[in-house]
Amino acid sequence: MSKVLIIGAGGVGRVVVHKCAQHPEIFSEIMLASRTKSKCDDIVADVQKATGHPAMQTAQVDADNVPELVQLIRSFGPKMVIHVALPYQDLTIMDACLETGVHYLDTANYEPKDEAKFEYSWQWAYQDRFREAGLTAILGCGFDPGVTSIFTARAAKHHFDEMHYLDIVDCNAGDHGKAFATNFNPEINIREVTQKGRYWENGQWVETEPHEIMEVLNYPNIGPRDSYLIYHEELESLVKNYPTLKRARFWMTFGQEYLTHLRVIQNIGMAGIEPVKYKGMDVIPLEFLKAVLPDPGGLGENYTGETSIGCRIRGLKDGKEQTYYIWNNCSHQAAFDETGAQGVSYTTGVPAALGAAMLLTGEWGGAGVFNVEEFNPDPFLDKLGEWGLPWQETVGADLEL
Amino acid sequence: MSKVLIIGAGGVGRVVVHKCAQHPEIFSEIMLASRTKSKCDDIVADVQKATGHPAMQTAQVDADNVPELVQLIRSFGPKMVIHVALPYQDLTIMDACLETGVHYLDTANYEPKDEAKFEYSWQWAYQDRFREAGLTAILGCGFDPGVTSIFTARAAKHHFDEMHYLDIVDCNAGDHGKAFATNFNPEINIREVTQKGRYWENGQWVETEPHEIMEVLNYPNIGPRDSYLIYHEELESLVKNYPTLKRARFWMTFGQEYLTHLRVIQNIGMAGIEPVKYKGMDVIPLEFLKAVLPDPGGLGENYTGETSIGCRIRGLKDGKEQTYYIWNNCSHQAAFDETGAQGVSYTTGVPAALGAAMLLTGEWGGAGVFNVEEFNPDPFLDKLGEWGLPWQETVGADLEL
Repeated sequence: MSKVLIIGAGGVGRVVVHKCAQHPEIFSEIMLASRTKSKCDDIVADVQKATGHPAMQTAQVDADNVPELVQLIRSFGPKMVIHVALPYQDLTIMDACLETGVHYLDTANYEPKDEAKFEYSWQWAYQDRFREAGLTAILGCGFDPGVTSIFTARAAKHHFDEMHYLDIVDCNAGDHGKAFATNFNPEINIREVTQKGRYWENGQWVETEPHEIMEVLNYPNIGPRDSYLIYHEELESLVKNYPTLKRARFWMTFGQEYLTHLRVIQNIGMAGIEPVKYKGMDVIPLEFLKAVLPDPGGLGENYTGETSIGCRIRGLKDGKEQTYYIWNNCSHQAAFDETGAQGVSYTTGVPAALGAAMLLTGEWGGAGVFNVEEFNPDPFLDKLGEWGLPWQETVGADLEL
Repeated sequence: MSKVLIIGAGGVGRVVVHKCAQHPEIFSEIMLASRTKSKCDDIVADVQKATGHPAMQTAQVDADNVPELVQLIRSFGPKMVIHVALPYQDLTIMDACLETGVHYLDTANYEPKDEAKFEYSWQWAYQDRFREAGLTAILGCGFDPGVTSIFTARAAKHHFDEMHYLDIVDCNAGDHGKAFATNFNPEINIREVTQKGRYWENGQWVETEPHEIMEVLNYPNIGPRDSYLIYHEELESLVKNYPTLKRARFWMTFGQEYLTHLRVIQNIGMAGIEPVKYKGMDVIPLEFLKAVLPDPGGLGENYTGETSIGCRIRGLKDGKEQTYYIWNNCSHQAAFDETGAQGVSYTTGVPAALGAAMLLTGEWGGAGVFNVEEFNPDPFLDKLGEWGLPWQETVGADLEL
């Protein structure tokens, strides 16, 4: 029976609030806060109607502002903060948690606003402070990063003595019916997918041009899709925590039209993160593009098809070659029917809420900053299907990669 | 020996200043004014070096502001204004000319900022006022509109008794080496080429979807190019002034990459002219796109290839079927070497300067508002080659269209 403060009222926030409210035995009081209180009010009204949760409230907060965060946390008194606002705000929220003595969970690593740089260094630097404060910070507890790392932890615990080759495969075979839209914050999405590719091989990072490496991969219940090697943040902690990995890669599917749109967005300068003068004002092209593109939170209705995200792993078990594939498929329509948000928000929000439940029920814990593969994967995966993301695994399958 | 005020310091303004300064016997004193005086200073310094013109100056002016324009015109005392700033500013500059008693010339019809509507109605409405003031307003004296209309006037005067079919064909076979850039103000260019197509047939306008009609046309010294039927403003006055025309169309070449970029720009909402909220400010997507895209005035260097623009006409002469093709080809590199501006600016700026010379030397004139085909084409076309845009014609050619 704990109070939880959820910060961020986009599609993921909507899902987190739904999932927490479905478990009042764990989340007895829920506050949703964001820059725009009316968005919080809308979500809480919907969730209250759907779940009947008796103790929900909303607040306005600027998550860039530590004193404001501290004041809100003090006045509400939660046991933990679930941060699903912007990755730029990871550090301010971590600072506020330290100052107020509450636990922290997020779904994406911190990145500075002025450079597209995806790495854990800034957040890992909080290790000593969380340890000394006796608080838990859980980093990257969405789907990827998040469930993909927990899938890998399950593989390591139950199916391998040594993991050698890890391929995380992320397919969105959904159709939102728009000419172009991103499935989550376009600013973050475009920063992520337009950067150079990178993968781990033989003890070092190998860099590729953006979208230089493509394979046609088959996804369960979906079929073959063009899959591009991109860098994704969980690779950094996984190769550190599983040093037997000889290679670790991340693949994401993109359609030709999506890539054409991305290419043009870059060509015309709209992916830029340096301010451009407009009528004497500083306007950051990518931030403005976000204002112009469809709101990812509004993509749910009529979004058909499904996502399929999983881990394909090769290595040794009992001295023999072992292969393993573990994945979840999620239907956009089912996600929308349950929560009013599409599948990409759903697959991120459910693990965030479940990760918080793990912490509040004592399954996960400890003082310090943790990536999710450092926790016991079993209680999380025991619950994940019941919480909305059933998963499957095959041992000894032909892996394509 | 007259004073001329040139307003607008983009690529076209640069060419106009060059061309006027090359003819000090007509343009004895030249002032260049724009919102940003430093741009004027740069151009005038270059032109003074190239031509040695003895009486050039610059000024700052906001061409949206009639009292400011009036004050500048009164203080300098020009005989005419050459307006090569933005088409949004046609009416304010015409108002200022009326108030101060000076002649007016522009290169593109007025359009309101808040709707993409290309028509002469607003400017034709000044007919009575210019007539009563005894002043001349010359509308659309660039290349197209401008030379294309004068080509048509030459055809009507010397080669046809009745013109029936007019096709204006505009090919830019240049390569500026950028992933995407527009050859003139991107805001105007994108408004123009993303609108629906329209052509005149049998006494009425026929509308098409944007880029619905394409023909592969051959251009002199260039070869075949995909050419798309678009609406272009000179059609409106030409079908009015040549009522025997059964059909009048305008074709422009676009490469596949250019069209892909345009399509994406529209898909992502960056061609929009309605303000979008960004950090509490109103930002117009298309205006901001202009700020992000390469400055067309800076495309000159390394711009290779050439433009080819002309009129293909069929009709009757002495009771027999007649065909006629008249065109100019312009090299981007030659234009840049002479003026520091690329071919699209050059082909617009030369006719503006020459049209002004026609007015100041008394070859053209009269009280009222005129489209250029209403003047005698002969003295203009006699000089056009010498001023930098040599033209050719063939009578009886196979026209493709």
